[in-house]
Amino acid sequence: MGNVIVAQSGGPTTAINASLAGVVRGAIESQKYDKVYGALHGISGVFAENFMDMSDFDDEKLKLLYQTPSSYLGSCRYKMPQPEEDPATYEKLFEIFKKYDVAAFFYNGGNDSMDTIAKLAAYGKKVDSPIRFAGVPKTIDNDLVSIDHTPGFGSAAKYIASSMLEIAHDTAVYKVPCVTIVEIMGRDAGWLTASACLARNGYNPTPSLIYLPELPFHRHQFIEDLKKELEVRNDVVVAVSEGIRDENGIYISAKSAVADKFGHAQLSGAGKTLENLVKNELHIKCRSVELNILQRCAAHIASAQDLKESEELGRQAVRFTEEGNTGFMSSLRRTSDAPYTYEFEMGNLAEIANAIKEVPREWINEAGNDVTQEMVDYLKPLIQGEVPVAYKDGLPAYLPVDHLFNA
Amino acid sequence: MGNVIVAQSGGPTTAINASLAGVVRGAIESQKYDKVYGALHGISGVFAENFMDMSDFDDEKLKLLYQTPSSYLGSCRYKMPQPEEDPATYEKLFEIFKKYDVAAFFYNGGNDSMDTIAKLAAYGKKVDSPIRFAGVPKTIDNDLVSIDHTPGFGSAAKYIASSMLEIAHDTAVYKVPCVTIVEIMGRDAGWLTASACLARNGYNPTPSLIYLPELPFHRHQFIEDLKKELEVRNDVVVAVSEGIRDENGIYISAKSAVADKFGHAQLSGAGKTLENLVKNELHIKCRSVELNILQRCAAHIASAQDLKESEELGRQAVRFTEEGNTGFMSSLRRTSDAPYTYEFEMGNLAEIANAIKEVPREWINEAGNDVTQEMVDYLKPLIQGEVPVAYKDGLPAYLPVDHLFNA
Repeated sequence: MGNVIVAQSGGPTTAINASLAGVVRGAIESQKYDKVYGALHGISGVFAENFMDMSDFDDEKLKLLYQTPSSYLGSCRYKMPQPEEDPATYEKLFEIFKKYDVAAFFYNGGNDSMDTIAKLAAYGKKVDSPIRFAGVPKTIDNDLVSIDHTPGFGSAAKYIASSMLEIAHDTAVYKVPCVTIVEIMGRDAGWLTASACLARNGYNPTPSLIYLPELPFHRHQFIEDLKKELEVRNDVVVAVSEGIRDENGIYISAKSAVADKFGHAQLSGAGKTLENLVKNELHIKCRSVELNILQRCAAHIASAQDLKESEELGRQAVRFTEEGNTGFMSSLRRTSDAPYTYEFEMGNLAEIANAIKEVPREWINEAGNDVTQEMVDYLKPLIQGEVPVAYKDGLPAYLPVDHLFNA
Repeated sequence: MGNVIVAQSGGPTTAINASLAGVVRGAIESQKYDKVYGALHGISGVFAENFMDMSDFDDEKLKLLYQTPSSYLGSCRYKMPQPEEDPATYEKLFEIFKKYDVAAFFYNGGNDSMDTIAKLAAYGKKVDSPIRFAGVPKTIDNDLVSIDHTPGFGSAAKYIASSMLEIAHDTAVYKVPCVTIVEIMGRDAGWLTASACLARNGYNPTPSLIYLPELPFHRHQFIEDLKKELEVRNDVVVAVSEGIRDENGIYISAKSAVADKFGHAQLSGAGKTLENLVKNELHIKCRSVELNILQRCAAHIASAQDLKESEELGRQAVRFTEEGNTGFMSSLRRTSDAPYTYEFEMGNLAEIANAIKEVPREWINEAGNDVTQEMVDYLKPLIQGEVPVAYKDGLPAYLPVDHLFNA
């Protein structure tokens, strides 16, 4: 017996708390683990010994946590140093683990978090520690390798597809030519932008054009594509990734690009830039819409399939550690598109940590302005099902996060 | 007996089709009216004799129409000339009315549409026409006079409040100081921005600050307000209207302001402008989020109260014409906040057409950076209840609008 620490890191998602609920439920039900501590604000909450005892979370609270958006335990952007460069940091952390009788540590996050788990597991092995380290994935971007798709992606995709459908209804009302550019998240991978294709539900032909960051974006070709579409209908809706780059690899939104401390470019404005381009080149009405952070937190329209898998991945992570495993990411492998089936497995952290899974070229059409049927088949199962979110006083009823507001 | 024409105009909303469903249902059930024609693309569809026979819409179809966002019949931005300046236009229209044996015309729109109804009713009276003309209001902005609140506003307010709550969960996760500016629609009236206050649900203290267009926006005071809030918590969320103006009446987003043909300024960018101001003045992380057109079309999170009232206003419009009334807007008057009760009445078009209902000064706090309890009491009933939207293949199931896409 020993205790469990769980923490969350990186940008929050709609499904990350479903994974947290899975870890907590798995640990509470486990015969091998005793208490479950939630570290507040990621690994930095472990250093600060800032723990919330989650051992007494009952079924009702776990169900509410399951459908509450964003990171219930808070997040951080702390990057672990290399153990050989800064052994003191690791020594301190393992002392804290010892003080709290920790048998397993679960880190719920994206590839920076998986890098942390890889480092901790490697250090643990070196110092012959019995502690098990497991990663539980999350990222709306779906850009982790070693997993069919990431928890949180399906809910973001459902939000994007539903929003695109509602925007299609909204923009179709006028008879004057009009272009609407919807900017969707995803710096380096086009999965989220691609999911706009799911809005085509039989009567809705939009978005007419889809541009992913995997291919160079040619401004001239874009205007030509628009002209062609405007011959077919007045109302042209376009989905573009925030991360589209020109032939020279320069972001279309280059003026506002600033790098964060992990070296990721912080972007905004591809849509606005293209809006101005369209107005200047075509002299027609053009509007840009940035879906922004609601893509990752609009839990009232979460994908039931996504939340279910996200919780399962948390519980599976606990089970894999119970079997003695360490240094892995809880993962799933798709075994069929239709009917949609999948199996759990352990992902290889060495593969995952700093790699990015891009959209394969063959899932983008030849012209580079749409996706193929393979993409539709891949995406469709991930947005299925709705979560029966309760409402209180007209608002979605989520698990209160007072502890974050008063921090 | 005679037929009915109904049309929709102006910017679409989540609830405008509920009003359309109300008119159609009312006309179908009426003993006084025969066929119901929907004119496509507003009054211009009447000129073009572009009608959809809606007489055979059954209960199932009307229920689906009720919860479908945007203008099912399409919209237009056609402004009727003054009858004395252009009598030929009126003569042509009334010939078409005669050709289709029209007994009543219903126009579902904002104040430009009410202006059209006022002109048609006046002309009708002048030429001794028996045709009845009625306006059925809609606008997310809630800026019409002669009605307690406008159909469509409650759903937009619910979307805004729910999105603000989800943004609050999202932005609360980090421990570093951070300002999030949420830009909300509303050129001249702050009702939509004010509704962000409803996100404060007991545990969520945000938005910390709310700025409406009714008061001048002082950049220096804004920075001082932020500094004070940042002493209380790291994560400050601010709601601002797109229409905020400085001490000289210049839009904060002045660089991108362009007037449309009704003389309304087309704005965007107040949030982005303030984001840059905060970064420059406070040197901390700042993000702006523009809620954009989803405020008026995210029907999957419509207010049940709003849709119910919107349909009732459509049906009431039909009833009022059955009683021989013409030249009015279907309206409602609140009789109590808690319990919330209201009565239907006929609004005076002369008052409505070109007036704007602003937020009263006493519903804004003294410092001008928040709203008062009176505003909360006024807004709260309007976002209550959820609409059981069905889903198909992971997307909200709306009434197909093929006729708009192929136009």
